[in-house]
Amino acid sequence: MKKITIADYLIQELNKLGISNFYGLPGDYNFEILDAVIKNPQTNWIGCINELNAGYAADGYARINGYGALITTYGVGELSAINAIAGSYAESVAVIKITGIPATKFIKNKTMLHHNFQEPDYKAFERSYSNVTTATTTLTAENAKEEIDRLLKIFVKEKKPVYISIPTDVCTVEITDTPAPKTAPKANRKKLEAAVEHAAKLINKSKAPTILADVLIDRYQSKEAFKDFMKKMSCPTATLLMGKSIVEEDNEYYMGTFLGEYGNKKAYERFKNSDCVISVGAVFSDLNTARFSLPFTPDNHINIQGNYCIIENVCYDEILMCEFLRELTNTLTEKKGEKPDWQWYYPKAKESTEKELTTEYLFSRLQEFFEENDMIFAETGIITYAMAEMKLPKNVTLQNQVLWGSIGWATPAMFGGSMADKSRRAILITGEGSHQLSALEVGNMLKHKLTPVIFVLNNSGYTIERLLSHDPQDEFNNIIKINYTKIPELFSGQAATYQVKTEKELDEILCKLSSKNINESTTPQKLHYIELFTDAMDVPEITNKIIKNIK
Amino acid sequence: MKKITIADYLIQELNKLGISNFYGLPGDYNFEILDAVIKNPQTNWIGCINELNAGYAADGYARINGYGALITTYGVGELSAINAIAGSYAESVAVIKITGIPATKFIKNKTMLHHNFQEPDYKAFERSYSNVTTATTTLTAENAKEEIDRLLKIFVKEKKPVYISIPTDVCTVEITDTPAPKTAPKANRKKLEAAVEHAAKLINKSKAPTILADVLIDRYQSKEAFKDFMKKMSCPTATLLMGKSIVEEDNEYYMGTFLGEYGNKKAYERFKNSDCVISVGAVFSDLNTARFSLPFTPDNHINIQGNYCIIENVCYDEILMCEFLRELTNTLTEKKGEKPDWQWYYPKAKESTEKELTTEYLFSRLQEFFEENDMIFAETGIITYAMAEMKLPKNVTLQNQVLWGSIGWATPAMFGGSMADKSRRAILITGEGSHQLSALEVGNMLKHKLTPVIFVLNNSGYTIERLLSHDPQDEFNNIIKINYTKIPELFSGQAATYQVKTEKELDEILCKLSSKNINESTTPQKLHYIELFTDAMDVPEITNKIIKNIK
Repeated sequence: MKKITIADYLIQELNKLGISNFYGLPGDYNFEILDAVIKNPQTNWIGCINELNAGYAADGYARINGYGALITTYGVGELSAINAIAGSYAESVAVIKITGIPATKFIKNKTMLHHNFQEPDYKAFERSYSNVTTATTTLTAENAKEEIDRLLKIFVKEKKPVYISIPTDVCTVEITDTPAPKTAPKANRKKLEAAVEHAAKLINKSKAPTILADVLIDRYQSKEAFKDFMKKMSCPTATLLMGKSIVEEDNEYYMGTFLGEYGNKKAYERFKNSDCVISVGAVFSDLNTARFSLPFTPDNHINIQGNYCIIENVCYDEILMCEFLRELTNTLTEKKGEKPDWQWYYPKAKESTEKELTTEYLFSRLQEFFEENDMIFAETGIITYAMAEMKLPKNVTLQNQVLWGSIGWATPAMFGGSMADKSRRAILITGEGSHQLSALEVGNMLKHKLTPVIFVLNNSGYTIERLLSHDPQDEFNNIIKINYTKIPELFSGQAATYQVKTEKELDEILCKLSSKNINESTTPQKLHYIELFTDAMDVPEITNKIIKNIK
Repeated sequence: MKKITIADYLIQELNKLGISNFYGLPGDYNFEILDAVIKNPQTNWIGCINELNAGYAADGYARINGYGALITTYGVGELSAINAIAGSYAESVAVIKITGIPATKFIKNKTMLHHNFQEPDYKAFERSYSNVTTATTTLTAENAKEEIDRLLKIFVKEKKPVYISIPTDVCTVEITDTPAPKTAPKANRKKLEAAVEHAAKLINKSKAPTILADVLIDRYQSKEAFKDFMKKMSCPTATLLMGKSIVEEDNEYYMGTFLGEYGNKKAYERFKNSDCVISVGAVFSDLNTARFSLPFTPDNHINIQGNYCIIENVCYDEILMCEFLRELTNTLTEKKGEKPDWQWYYPKAKESTEKELTTEYLFSRLQEFFEENDMIFAETGIITYAMAEMKLPKNVTLQNQVLWGSIGWATPAMFGGSMADKSRRAILITGEGSHQLSALEVGNMLKHKLTPVIFVLNNSGYTIERLLSHDPQDEFNNIIKINYTKIPELFSGQAATYQVKTEKELDEILCKLSSKNINESTTPQKLHYIELFTDAMDVPEITNKIIKNIK
């Protein structure tokens, strides 16, 4: 039987899941794991500026690629990244966290090594991680094969982070390279049939079914199944904020992003009056529902989640979203509901002027800038809601972090995501208050010759927090002034930088970057870094409306 | 009785411990706490680039100031900083971690709010923190007074981080502002007397007592007591690496930093032949003892720790270092041991030449550059060991992170520490591989008009890891190229930057910065940022020797 080292086996099995880029930083306890990555011809090591950024990058990669991996050293490295992994956990992004830890003998002897405490506690960091992952393990020579296989099975089923730590001496132990048991999860056939029957009954008798689609459709790899389901249903469909771009936005049944009573009134009325709301992969969190502004109770209707569904308050577990959607689609007769007859997106941008740039102009102009296949990463803050009313072209994907909402996420996440598919144009839209937390990751975009378009909205501080705190002028809402466009200059690599203060300046740059005006290719030939100046209290109308109401 | 809000009470009590700077970032769950900070005329809010940096800054501040505080928001903010707090915990730096969390009603209802999970878990982050702090609590209106008092008592006794989270609604609840019970810990009189008697007996019969002083002397605020003890003992004394600068280095009994068999042979022999080793505040970790290269067993002799001591393998707990040292000093008769007659520090730097800069020249030249009262922060990596053989002038303090060893720590820690005492010249010595993780904190130094001297040793990657990993050329030991001297230009503020490639260039700058050549003041008038280029494999001899032997 073929032999393989434990580290090689782990990397090999992760590569089988489609992971070819491993993000992280080196450290003296993880060299053996990194060796396995660089030795494997199918996998690459992608170093990042720091571990938190690396975690975000792995998250961004997993969002585009399906699965991602983060490797750090023990203690210092892994704890620096725990917020990123917690974010992946919150938002169901499948990132595996791998930590290289001291050799078994030191653990057994409780030796006081660096990256531990004066009273060494070799389980402390795994315990910390157990609160933000779906499973954790520390490998031994004896349990490694079994534990790797067990964790990967959970990883694939739950689409949430798992944590594996490997003592340095265990990495190089050889095991027999027998095939791992199938990782694909299985539904409970009986429960699936019962759920499909129950749902079909409700849908068939419904006069005004309405679909609410959200992000877990993507995470549970059910986009195609959902598309077919939506076609069969042919009824008004909205997305939630996290799920924006799940539905092709020129679909005639699409009625935009649902923002409760603060967004489109007609969409709100439709849900209110619907006798059968089918929510698919929906995350019913505060900011994703405009502070629980739902005119229906999801569990009273049909609420389809990744691994279970709730129909008229009956929970069917051991169900898989994709399978459920397929069977339900097959069961249903073709439908034809009325089509939304209202415009839910930004009007065409008005002619640009020499006036100072406002968010109103900015977002309507950006709507025209986006092109097919763009990969957009939008940072938390005022931008999130502004994106809700944007009409996106075909095959555009929009990534945000509405539930976890960790500022600083978007910059490295875009880096990681962009590395997953270099053929697509990557776009980052971030506020400067968030960007400052992780801005140096721009350097790794340049190192890897990525050519994203980066928009940094500089509104002189934490504008969203000015809206939320007692006094907008509170000093803690100010941030340090940075000459953002000098950031790309810190690194070698091709970058064009711009400072935009007026509508016209923005318009000119976006025209220049339009694929119609770029000769050879639809993607720009270098990184574009565009700093946009707006007033400290200028927020898009929709953001303002929601913030005011949820304050 | 005077009433006070819970947030105001917490800030007031922390201010009584001497904390006037609170580091962190704002977030919508911590506004009420930040309001308490900015409202209190005794306290300042110091915003940082990101939460990890803020944690490091609070750590640096606490190292100089005695106590420090970090405030972040819930989930995203606190998890980003957990590595910094774990570092403070490992190294006994008293930093309190304060988190603003959602209002009580949301916690009770398990509402799915932002910065939490799809299945909300309101205790998850406190549980994560419980692994890296000495006590945690979540305040309620009912328990707040009692819990704050309880945690601060532990904080003062243990000199280690504690964690307090406060729901937004609890912050503004009023309580009666009665004095907190005394926080000063008390020793057990009987045990103290027994321990002093035992130690005195050993010391009095000893022919060749030898002292090993380390960092916990400083952490347990026993520097003065130790100084008196050392004077009474008048015997050969070394420090460990973490405790460098605890002993005034022109003391005639000082024999340098103890680096086991890899450092000074004569010091090693002295410890080997000593019939009574008295270790005070020593951290016997791998890197602090040159991989456990100790020619004696501390517990066989006298091992004095912060809250206990071990004498001939008998443990006396409920002992306080400071009190113990004072009583022991009083008990002992004056002694006069032989004085070390060897030079343990770098020789005088040779005349500078046009030759390329080497670490050999660099560290001997730096030795001459340091001046009285300097506050030095030395980053983990090859620099740590190089500092061991440096002779420091009077009242210089050296901070390092030998046990926790989190790269990136030193830059923000120096920022925080410098804010604790602006009258002292602050010096940062970091490698570029570490600096990149947290380099933007330079901006906050400029914002606060600090004038440190920053040395960034650019040796093209992780040199220490090149030495430790299997192949120095492994790609993961390379890091992105950054034009470091452009970093200060990202910000407004006064900075002078230099790129140094030869001995002569270094010599000239250091001469210029010498207090003899600065007219008005011994501190520079602006921030100085000096990038030093050395070869990728150039390490100081002592670092090389140790690394080779512990690999």
